[in-house]
Amino acid sequence: MSSEMREKCGVFGVFNHPQAADLTYYGLHALQHRGQESAGIVASDGKTFRHHRGMGLVTQVFSRDILDGLSGNMAIGHVRYSTSGQSLLENAQPLVFKYSEGDLAVAHNGNLVNARVERDVLQQQGSIFQTTTDTEIIAHLIARSSKKHFAKAAPDTLKRLDGSFALLIMTEKQMLIALDRHGLRPLSLGKIGDAVVAASETCALNAVDAKFWRDVEPGEWLLIDENGVQTGRFAPKSEQSLCSFEFVYFARPDSIIHGRSVLAIRKELGQILAKEHPIDADVVIAVPDSSIPAAIGYAAQSGIPYEIGLIKNPYVGRSFIEPTQELRELAVRLKLSAVEGILNGKKVVLIDDSIVRGTTSKRIVQLLRQAGAKEIHVRISSPMVRNPCFYGVDMPTKEELFANKHEQEQEMGRSIGADTLAFLSTDGLLKAVDVNLAETSNRCIACFSGAYPTKLYLE
Amino acid sequence: MSSEMREKCGVFGVFNHPQAADLTYYGLHALQHRGQESAGIVASDGKTFRHHRGMGLVTQVFSRDILDGLSGNMAIGHVRYSTSGQSLLENAQPLVFKYSEGDLAVAHNGNLVNARVERDVLQQQGSIFQTTTDTEIIAHLIARSSKKHFAKAAPDTLKRLDGSFALLIMTEKQMLIALDRHGLRPLSLGKIGDAVVAASETCALNAVDAKFWRDVEPGEWLLIDENGVQTGRFAPKSEQSLCSFEFVYFARPDSIIHGRSVLAIRKELGQILAKEHPIDADVVIAVPDSSIPAAIGYAAQSGIPYEIGLIKNPYVGRSFIEPTQELRELAVRLKLSAVEGILNGKKVVLIDDSIVRGTTSKRIVQLLRQAGAKEIHVRISSPMVRNPCFYGVDMPTKEELFANKHEQEQEMGRSIGADTLAFLSTDGLLKAVDVNLAETSNRCIACFSGAYPTKLYLE
Amino acid sequence: MSSEMREKCGVFGVFNHPQAADLTYYGLHALQHRGQESAGIVASDGKTFRHHRGMGLVTQVFSRDILDGLSGNMAIGHVRYSTSGQSLLENAQPLVFKYSEGDLAVAHNGNLVNARVERDVLQQQGSIFQTTTDTEIIAHLIARSSKKHFAKAAPDTLKRLDGSFALLIMTEKQMLIALDRHGLRPLSLGKIGDAVVAASETCALNAVDAKFWRDVEPGEWLLIDENGVQTGRFAPKSEQSLCSFEFVYFARPDSIIHGRSVLAIRKELGQILAKEHPIDADVVIAVPDSSIPAAIGYAAQSGIPYEIGLIKNPYVGRSFIEPTQELRELAVRLKLSAVEGILNGKKVVLIDDSIVRGTTSKRIVQLLRQAGAKEIHVRISSPMVRNPCFYGVDMPTKEELFANKHEQEQEMGRSIGADTLAFLSTDGLLKAVDVNLAETSNRCIACFSGAYPTKLYLE
Amino acid sequence: MSSEMREKCGVFGVFNHPQAADLTYYGLHALQHRGQESAGIVASDGKTFRHHRGMGLVTQVFSRDILDGLSGNMAIGHVRYSTSGQSLLENAQPLVFKYSEGDLAVAHNGNLVNARVERDVLQQQGSIFQTTTDTEIIAHLIARSSKKHFAKAAPDTLKRLDGSFALLIMTEKQMLIALDRHGLRPLSLGKIGDAVVAASETCALNAVDAKFWRDVEPGEWLLIDENGVQTGRFAPKSEQSLCSFEFVYFARPDSIIHGRSVLAIRKELGQILAKEHPIDADVVIAVPDSSIPAAIGYAAQSGIPYEIGLIKNPYVGRSFIEPTQELRELAVRLKLSAVEGILNGKKVVLIDDSIVRGTTSKRIVQLLRQAGAKEIHVRISSPMVRNPCFYGVDMPTKEELFANKHEQEQEMGRSIGADTLAFLSTDGLLKAVDVNLAETSNRCIACFSGAYPTKLYLE
Repeated sequence: MSSEMREKCGVFGVFNHPQAADLTYYGLHALQHRGQESAGIVASDGKTFRHHRGMGLVTQVFSRDILDGLSGNMAIGHVRYSTSGQSLLENAQPLVFKYSEGDLAVAHNGNLVNARVERDVLQQQGSIFQTTTDTEIIAHLIARSSKKHFAKAAPDTLKRLDGSFALLIMTEKQMLIALDRHGLRPLSLGKIGDAVVAASETCALNAVDAKFWRDVEPGEWLLIDENGVQTGRFAPKSEQSLCSFEFVYFARPDSIIHGRSVLAIRKELGQILAKEHPIDADVVIAVPDSSIPAAIGYAAQSGIPYEIGLIKNPYVGRSFIEPTQELRELAVRLKLSAVEGILNGKKVVLIDDSIVRGTTSKRIVQLLRQAGAKEIHVRISSPMVRNPCFYGVDMPTKEELFANKHEQEQEMGRSIGADTLAFLSTDGLLKAVDVNLAETSNRCIACFSGAYPTKLYLE
Repeated sequence: MSSEMREKCGVFGVFNHPQAADLTYYGLHALQHRGQESAGIVASDGKTFRHHRGMGLVTQVFSRDILDGLSGNMAIGHVRYSTSGQSLLENAQPLVFKYSEGDLAVAHNGNLVNARVERDVLQQQGSIFQTTTDTEIIAHLIARSSKKHFAKAAPDTLKRLDGSFALLIMTEKQMLIALDRHGLRPLSLGKIGDAVVAASETCALNAVDAKFWRDVEPGEWLLIDENGVQTGRFAPKSEQSLCSFEFVYFARPDSIIHGRSVLAIRKELGQILAKEHPIDADVVIAVPDSSIPAAIGYAAQSGIPYEIGLIKNPYVGRSFIEPTQELRELAVRLKLSAVEGILNGKKVVLIDDSIVRGTTSKRIVQLLRQAGAKEIHVRISSPMVRNPCFYGVDMPTKEELFANKHEQEQEMGRSIGADTLAFLSTDGLLKAVDVNLAETSNRCIACFSGAYPTKLYLE
Repeated sequence: MSSEMREKCGVFGVFNHPQAADLTYYGLHALQHRGQESAGIVASDGKTFRHHRGMGLVTQVFSRDILDGLSGNMAIGHVRYSTSGQSLLENAQPLVFKYSEGDLAVAHNGNLVNARVERDVLQQQGSIFQTTTDTEIIAHLIARSSKKHFAKAAPDTLKRLDGSFALLIMTEKQMLIALDRHGLRPLSLGKIGDAVVAASETCALNAVDAKFWRDVEPGEWLLIDENGVQTGRFAPKSEQSLCSFEFVYFARPDSIIHGRSVLAIRKELGQILAKEHPIDADVVIAVPDSSIPAAIGYAAQSGIPYEIGLIKNPYVGRSFIEPTQELRELAVRLKLSAVEGILNGKKVVLIDDSIVRGTTSKRIVQLLRQAGAKEIHVRISSPMVRNPCFYGVDMPTKEELFANKHEQEQEMGRSIGADTLAFLSTDGLLKAVDVNLAETSNRCIACFSGAYPTKLYLE
Repeated sequence: MSSEMREKCGVFGVFNHPQAADLTYYGLHALQHRGQESAGIVASDGKTFRHHRGMGLVTQVFSRDILDGLSGNMAIGHVRYSTSGQSLLENAQPLVFKYSEGDLAVAHNGNLVNARVERDVLQQQGSIFQTTTDTEIIAHLIARSSKKHFAKAAPDTLKRLDGSFALLIMTEKQMLIALDRHGLRPLSLGKIGDAVVAASETCALNAVDAKFWRDVEPGEWLLIDENGVQTGRFAPKSEQSLCSFEFVYFARPDSIIHGRSVLAIRKELGQILAKEHPIDADVVIAVPDSSIPAAIGYAAQSGIPYEIGLIKNPYVGRSFIEPTQELRELAVRLKLSAVEGILNGKKVVLIDDSIVRGTTSKRIVQLLRQAGAKEIHVRISSPMVRNPCFYGVDMPTKEELFANKHEQEQEMGRSIGADTLAFLSTDGLLKAVDVNLAETSNRCIACFSGAYPTKLYLE
């Protein structure tokens, strides 16, 4: 269940469109899967910022009245997920500041690995902080830059940031778009007539009917103002290390990242999985909804028919009241329902996109058994997750990871009650997510392999 | 898009379980697809009623505190959809009354066709009404019954009700479960140890881990109290006329109605559709989520591969801000996204479960064209909807129905921009939803055929 | 502290004014002191009712949008206080019903002493109830009346009601105004041009700039429709028994009841109190705000100067968080503040309008001592409250009443820490509230004397 | 109507008390008259800050649960009023920051006249701001101080602040209390056992049963930590210039400022007014509630009896719906009610504490006329307000001030419909508010005289 690993943010921006805030609302709505805890939009009419942020889904945070108040033809927006301790409105983005040159708004997807170091330096210099986010550092660095003018100061500041960032920064009249030197998070550009649009994923470009223009390159910045688009680099062109989990789970299946269809890749992951770990069975089923494409791929490759064996209750959400102790056993049933007619007496291949903690997998296997499944063969369309992510993904601790609690696949399978269990190999993953196998740094696979593309600044 | 026809209610009840209100919450949650406007639960501890009702989803209406307040070992609950004019908290169910014998609560799925007639009679006799619902009539009739005691009065009252009703009625110590003489709406029974559970669909029995017991028969009532279950009939055993649209769209795919898997039937509808209306094509795709089983069936029968060609934004809901005039063209895009990689240059079979107004179909076809589909063949897994429902389904007026605005399929197809368009035949539908083709009254197909199983009391 | 006895309701109605709902809002706002738990307005445009009710103050329940929706040129409104157990939205008034002749709305100040008897009869006849209020009975009786047409049925129904009622009943086109045969609660009429206004107190007439017309007489009804005002009696002209506590505490000081200024009467109560219970002292102070007029009267009569010795925190209200156990001693301080500069070293006369439980009095005396008062002489501008009210006033039980826990004034004074304590005599009260001393039934003084003007129907 | 000039803030702090947050809640509640737009509390347990801020009254912003979460034995709180444009939650105080030495919270009553200058300097040095308040500057200056450690840096920073400030600053373990060098705003200290309490007014000390200790001196700071209280000066002992309007209107009457009872001073203002502007009349009445003490003073001095001639509707508040155009004339009536029995046929002295815009005065005079007043002599217990305040009081612009729109008192009186109008003289005011007439700088009377005690930094 990849929902146990969570992408933390999505960003969206529009420059030079009369309905900038409305488009940002729809763009964020299309990126809602990237963060459900808070949402915010800052708009500028060239002179003044207007902003609104709130806790909850995009549709809960904004009303028609609020959107109408966000006038202006440029806007940036943000959706966010955070661990509970820091789930404060103060930390909701875009962050908004006033500094010597005027207003500044920052929307950031990613995580700065040198945040603590830079924060200490800034505080020693007399800076005060109002949030506990790494993102606030960016604004301080711009304000303190030795370069005059945002157009010079902002690109210059990017050099000091280590880690992952897909970044939108706005002043009253300008917008800066930038991506970290490793390209750890996705960031795409689109156009609607003369307007420029930036979004974490292309599904948000489609939502607002923007024509795809191109992806932002690692180490690149774009500065957009009334004179048009200016581009530059704060780091040399280098190996890209886009998060491979974007393909496995985070991105919406209709997005295209680096020219590759996420849906097609997920199907291919299933096909490779079928080649690596074939099994004799009657049906292939998926853990809905995220694993369906991989299951279809596995079925196509293996020739075993794909069936709908698990149904998801579409109304399970944030405010759902979890069962009390007495009714604890209902926990999975309330979210997933096994279809007896499909499963009874069958040898079943269950496709899931990952195993993170393992607890949910165990419960799903049990559900299938209760529905009469004769054999259950669990196939995972990604390798074992063994290492923490330092680039903006929320995960359990290393000790809590399923793969670190068990020695080998056989024991793992037994622990979740499956007849067999098998994971996709790292090679299999890379084959699907990037053709260039010689240079594995083309994708970040640190959570599987432990090889991190950046310095980590661990204490 | 069957979402343009809406089931109006779902009911759930538990007798003799210490967590009665909690189970009812989870049961209603599993029935949420049957009504999203209001929800309510009434619980009894054998002496006193405690109830809570509110506008919104089950998860919005109830909190842990509220549920904890609904103590007692019996409870009934209700979810409701209503047309906007009557969307009042006062009309939310279960309705609660006080009468000569104590407290009375009523939860009703269906529609009484003789409501106006009976209401007039009651008002002439001096009754006053607090709601505009037909359901309130049931309480008045029980209160005015010539039979003493609820146990006699309630079954006696059922004889006077015409139309559709799956009904749960509760006093402080008793629960009555009843189904109209035609069995127009589904109603199933389950058991959890000694506790009896009643629910509109078996998916709600599964949710609370109740063992399926049996369906309630048309014209049957069950009275449950501390002495156990007593059953009887208020109408002779007769032809059943369960709504066939429950199979086509309303019911959750994991439910089993009259021993038949809803998912399996939907797949079969797709298979029969492929036999009736074959076409040469590259891919079969579905309008998600409801038409996916039929699409898989069509694909299996035709040999054309099933693919995910349309993605639904899972976050579109009630409070979504619809685009303003300037951005109107985004309306479909924000809810559905076409997958270009699947569709581009392809001959596509698009499976939908019904066409009600036709406007959404037109927009979806357009979306597929923009994504590069070369040919689009729309196949509908139900017959043309031509007639209003008087049994508790919300529909457009007869004039607004797509099938009544066009002479023949060819013209219909052109009007939505499809290359071809074809509907399942009524025979095809009946073949899937019931084996006994000789007696078509086994299912209500009035919205397709115009043959209503009951008197209509039209003015 | 008379706030320990609470008037339960206020009513307001307008007929034939284009801003009927707005005026009702302002009228209810002026009557807010008569009930702070719920508020409601029903308006009619001659054909359809529109209504809104909610928990809380008038300003919390209504918004500009809601008021704008209450169109029509007639309206009735209600403010309510209730004991906590029944503080339900369902019980908020005006109650609204549908019956054989159309719509019906009822707003009621008072209490029907034969409610239980009539309710039993109605339930035996098959009536069902949705509230636990006595007011619902009135609607049932009208609906079941043997007289056809509201104009006949409503006045006829009044004969069956025992107890207290200031009543406004509305149909789509008519308004009935009525007062119980003893005139236990106040009800006045005003005019704004051609429009007729009815209100519990004249302060609400002033608020909407209506000209005072006359008080409604005990046993009288007025029926207003497009043909004008028709009056009649459901009971012969008899002794009036208006609640004397309206003068002592309930009514707003700027109201005029039966031609008598409430403010002037409160001042007179203070003057008589000074004659009955003179004392040598330096200052006269009041428990704010209700006792200020009596204190000014006492000061004027005695020649001792009136000073502001206690200040009330104007922001103490419903949602105030009471101190926890550790800080319990702050309870009075947070609401009242003693002015040391006025009290230190002084002999103080403290005027309060009543003692109900006695606990607050004890705390206030303590507060004055802490501020340095040398002697404290408590003077109460009403007699001892010894008996429950059955006519719509919320009070502690008989056992909880201060006057029933102590034998004589001397002991009473000691129990609250005062140097002396004295109450106004019943004769003194009647002298102020009505000139006609020969016929004491002119005012209800049952809570002081135990002589109830009606049958009580106690079980 | 002094309510047209508004004090902008109140502050409250507690050090070394186990119920620090609770006491702060009660203290702020007692200071609610100083700011009704937002409220906030920051508590520290010696290690961590916990804070909560919200828009609205203290009772609306805090709940029992929220207060319970604010654990720790030190806390500071703030209530605020602001002009509408800046009425943002971001600006609500106490402001909370993180800086090099840890956490910092600031609660400020007053206005820094050099805010713009200092802000420019800070921004040039690279500081970024998150609020539009002058208060944020204080935190920046502390963070950038050349002195190490808060205990040195904070007092040092105070030297750079010009204007008015009653200031509470908190770190995890320390509290700094300071007053500007002119003592423009009140700030008092109290003790509860070993705990130290600071509050804008002594009424808040009384509310929490703290013993008055002393007033903070102009230019003084106190630093409290586990080692006790340390005091010092950031400016030499100089002339005090406490705002004289605190005595006229802002402060609660039960407060004692600089050893003088506010209530007694208001009464004395009335007495001096009677000497300066005697008139032959029947009754003296007050505009409630603020002018009552002055009216009692005027009555005592003149021998004309004080009566209650105007009643205030106690329920008029923030959310009150103002009358629409059609009912505009009701505007005053809904808030104030004239008592006809007192006024009819009488020569009336109307005491108000000030005239700011004059519009309300005109409406009140009209109300008295409608109630039958024969003559109306308006007497104002303060001089004419002619000049803006730069020290934290919200006022109309200079052009909107009543006194600047008219040449002389006679014309002024005519413009509000009064028979005569007279203002207290500046000498009269000073006689009451301070004995030391030789040194008028003892009180700030800038709004009357135009003589400002500080540099103004106007552009």
